[in-house]
Amino acid sequence: MTPVPDSDQKHAVANLSNLYRIFTVQESPDTTLGKIDQEISQNLVGFLGNRIVATEKDLALIEQDFSSPQIPEQPTFVSDYTEFLMDTLVAQSVHTASPGFVGHMTTALPSFMLPLSRIMTALNQNLVKIETSKAFTPMERQVLGMLHALIYNNDDTYYQTWMHNADSALGAFCSGGTLANITALWVARNKLFPACEGFRGIAREGFHKALKHYNCEGVAVLISKRGHYSFGKAADVLGIGRDSIVAIPTDSDNKIDIDQLLSTIKQLKQQGIKILSLVGIAGTTETGNVDPLDRLADIAADEGCYLHVDAAWGGPTLFSSTNKQLLKGIERADSVTIDAHKQMYVPMGAGMVLFKNPASLASIEHHAEYILRKGSKDLGSHTLEGSRPGTAMLVHSALNIIGRKGYELLIDKGIATASNFADLIEASGDFELITRPELNLLTYRYVPKRIQQALKSVDTEKRASINSELNKLTKQIQKSQRASGISFVSRTRLTPTRYSGDTITVFRVVLANPLTTPEILTEILKEQKQIAIDDELTTEILARIEQLIAT
Amino acid sequence: MTPVPDSDQKHAVANLSNLYRIFTVQESPDTTLGKIDQEISQNLVGFLGNRIVATEKDLALIEQDFSSPQIPEQPTFVSDYTEFLMDTLVAQSVHTASPGFVGHMTTALPSFMLPLSRIMTALNQNLVKIETSKAFTPMERQVLGMLHALIYNNDDTYYQTWMHNADSALGAFCSGGTLANITALWVARNKLFPACEGFRGIAREGFHKALKHYNCEGVAVLISKRGHYSFGKAADVLGIGRDSIVAIPTDSDNKIDIDQLLSTIKQLKQQGIKILSLVGIAGTTETGNVDPLDRLADIAADEGCYLHVDAAWGGPTLFSSTNKQLLKGIERADSVTIDAHKQMYVPMGAGMVLFKNPASLASIEHHAEYILRKGSKDLGSHTLEGSRPGTAMLVHSALNIIGRKGYELLIDKGIATASNFADLIEASGDFELITRPELNLLTYRYVPKRIQQALKSVDTEKRASINSELNKLTKQIQKSQRASGISFVSRTRLTPTRYSGDTITVFRVVLANPLTTPEILTEILKEQKQIAIDDELTTEILARIEQLIAT
Repeated sequence: MTPVPDSDQKHAVANLSNLYRIFTVQESPDTTLGKIDQEISQNLVGFLGNRIVATEKDLALIEQDFSSPQIPEQPTFVSDYTEFLMDTLVAQSVHTASPGFVGHMTTALPSFMLPLSRIMTALNQNLVKIETSKAFTPMERQVLGMLHALIYNNDDTYYQTWMHNADSALGAFCSGGTLANITALWVARNKLFPACEGFRGIAREGFHKALKHYNCEGVAVLISKRGHYSFGKAADVLGIGRDSIVAIPTDSDNKIDIDQLLSTIKQLKQQGIKILSLVGIAGTTETGNVDPLDRLADIAADEGCYLHVDAAWGGPTLFSSTNKQLLKGIERADSVTIDAHKQMYVPMGAGMVLFKNPASLASIEHHAEYILRKGSKDLGSHTLEGSRPGTAMLVHSALNIIGRKGYELLIDKGIATASNFADLIEASGDFELITRPELNLLTYRYVPKRIQQALKSVDTEKRASINSELNKLTKQIQKSQRASGISFVSRTRLTPTRYSGDTITVFRVVLANPLTTPEILTEILKEQKQIAIDDELTTEILARIEQLIAT
Repeated sequence: MTPVPDSDQKHAVANLSNLYRIFTVQESPDTTLGKIDQEISQNLVGFLGNRIVATEKDLALIEQDFSSPQIPEQPTFVSDYTEFLMDTLVAQSVHTASPGFVGHMTTALPSFMLPLSRIMTALNQNLVKIETSKAFTPMERQVLGMLHALIYNNDDTYYQTWMHNADSALGAFCSGGTLANITALWVARNKLFPACEGFRGIAREGFHKALKHYNCEGVAVLISKRGHYSFGKAADVLGIGRDSIVAIPTDSDNKIDIDQLLSTIKQLKQQGIKILSLVGIAGTTETGNVDPLDRLADIAADEGCYLHVDAAWGGPTLFSSTNKQLLKGIERADSVTIDAHKQMYVPMGAGMVLFKNPASLASIEHHAEYILRKGSKDLGSHTLEGSRPGTAMLVHSALNIIGRKGYELLIDKGIATASNFADLIEASGDFELITRPELNLLTYRYVPKRIQQALKSVDTEKRASINSELNKLTKQIQKSQRASGISFVSRTRLTPTRYSGDTITVFRVVLANPLTTPEILTEILKEQKQIAIDDELTTEILARIEQLIAT
């Protein structure tokens, strides 16, 4: 990065003697940055290339490019900096939009998102208050209303009454599902310990005094063991402690075990523990399964307790006429988390939590002198974040441009692709499907047919040893495939019923990119098999397994 | 918004039969969106115009454009939607970059931010884990290191050891100052009640058990009454309760009153209350003043308690050789909040909290099976948020392109402009400067010379009545000026020493836009005076004040 010579101002927008120009003069199309800007506009896919990472480079090497703690003293030419950025950062970023990148929930973006994002960035609104967001405030309230209607489906009169009501909110927009889940449990906690005679409410007096006043020993959040890690984080932040998260075992379909849930509730009540919330999952992060939401809603009704549904991933399934029944009961939840940056194809940083009761968010309401005055429509009085961008605009755009039917197509395609891929895995002989997809996630592992057969007949001790070796195999194949850079599946650890007790490592595949074809998936299996055969480490592992079977 | 006719695919990127095209074919430059995209690239200022809002429209009217809860069934042409967006949303958004918009902390962006933001959006990285961010992880760690060095100024060996260390973090990047402050107090809370013999730590067991184990009655966060409202929110979220925030009075310069602080600490200790944190403010939201940080650090050292500094606004003052001494002592704080979307001129959604001790964030560490595995360098194990965008890239860019000296110019200019504007207000005769700027914020109000003189001689009761009328006057002038759409100052309420007891409403001005000229500020005063003279309501108020003085 060359410092700016004082005499040369050609491309130097940050020349010291000329600094304020950077706030008025736009980036010229003939600078490096201007050219790249044009290039991305014309061909995003070409710009990023077809690989997962342009050229695989060790993290330690990349760190060397980002190792100086010194803030450069002198300004740098935009073009010089851009070249550095392209070489070191962009070339070493992850191509999350690649159709072979099926390992995580970050996927491709529709092309209209880029110019629309530029409008959003250029406007630089701050949604905390109307004075810095104006029309963005009703726009965000409409987006929350639309998602609320998708879930709760009230009539138009309801939305006319509540959507733009200053004293309430149908939901809160935030940067992502974690904040959405924290907000939901925050509301649930504060509603559990409201102000009353002799107590000014938990928001004012704190958790310790709330327990004392309401004469209870503690609280519990009940969620299946497949629950997202953000609930543990929420319990820590909210002061109730991670131990308050009671992980309920799951059945063979990775859904919460209702009998175990009921007996746990009974035990907790005997101990003087209040249920802060039941949590249902609509699309677990690891397997994509959906809890029996209707049954959970029955239990919540019986117990008179709060029900939150984490539909960060699965929520948009509601767009599909055929598949929305998978989420039946979600409309009875007190709150629902949905991430727009997942299956709504909006860029990173768009989460929402919707509340059945528009008065719920009052339990976390806050005000200040210069903004968020009582009676104002400032969105900031009901959000965990303060200043935040107008990302809701991109959700508004996507809902309009793609439409309900467009989303339906995308959702249905993902579910169909996952189902077909599961069939392919099962038909292959050398792969074992671990979890059959209910939505568009599945898990599997590479197990040559001979070993699959052996696993059925060996005793539990030997089975555990084989599974332990298979775990190393899966890990090595996954790492090696990622490093080769054509495709990416992630890995996680599960304890499937069929191997009761054995924790096994599996490949995890998320099928939300509409450009992921059956051919790409076939290639992924082929490559994995090839790695298992070629790789030095994997052949050693396979040999050890053969030996285990033989002895 | 016209639905897409099946036969016409010309501009329909979201045609149902052709849906997947929107993920591959880029927006053509001859569509409405393509044209607007080009237009913004070439002339952002022209695109937005010189007014605060294009045409003032009542919020209730704007709400009508965003009132349907129905998600459109059919897709919409991108061009049609864009036209709708430009007419209803963009035209009614707030022109935060206008040099006459001096009422809030949201300001102009350097032009290189737009193409760079597009690169960031196009890459759609998820910084929670390396598998979806790769080089963005070391890049963000470097940004945190650079800001850490700006504050704590350790030597290069220190940063070589800690910057890319998997088991620690120099700070956490987040969407804004509120999350940064919550993170800081979360860390402080968890460090106050660590795991020990017989107690697994507050993170596991919760606040109630922590108090019991450590045998204490409660906790307190001590901050001046000028503290940001996010601390109250933090106290609610963290389960310690808003009442734990003990607001310490300020001196005549809006800085924390040290004697009052010391006596409060003494009282609290007698009551068995532990100090969770002292909080110093480097640039209060309402007046821009800086607490005596060195003195606070002495007290924190004496008490052995945590010290957090909220430098969301004032932090970048450290770029200036001449003005950084205003923040002397900040390097002794346990943690510091800085917002990059404020005085670092990065788009909305970029906050940071830096920790003196790289081990501090371990107190809120969390892990999961499929990501954030122990020993990984995944950033998500130390952040309040989960999935989040690669906004740190824009901070990295700004630090390099603008450089320390560039920021110094911007900071020094803002402080000089504020100082000059204060002189202008005092010289004007008809305005009363309420708080003289220490950084680049000041407050004042319109008080005709005659009334200013009267205020000095009347008794306290009459003074209160006059101030009460003046409050209505200030409010009316501020609202009327905002509605006229040329410039915007905000308003807040203060209780200055000179009117001991009277709460007065003031104009609040934030001078961070380098394009705000002395001429613009002169015009703002002129317009305010004109409103006072012309407006029906203000003339009535002024008449009532005259009457009060006369009787």
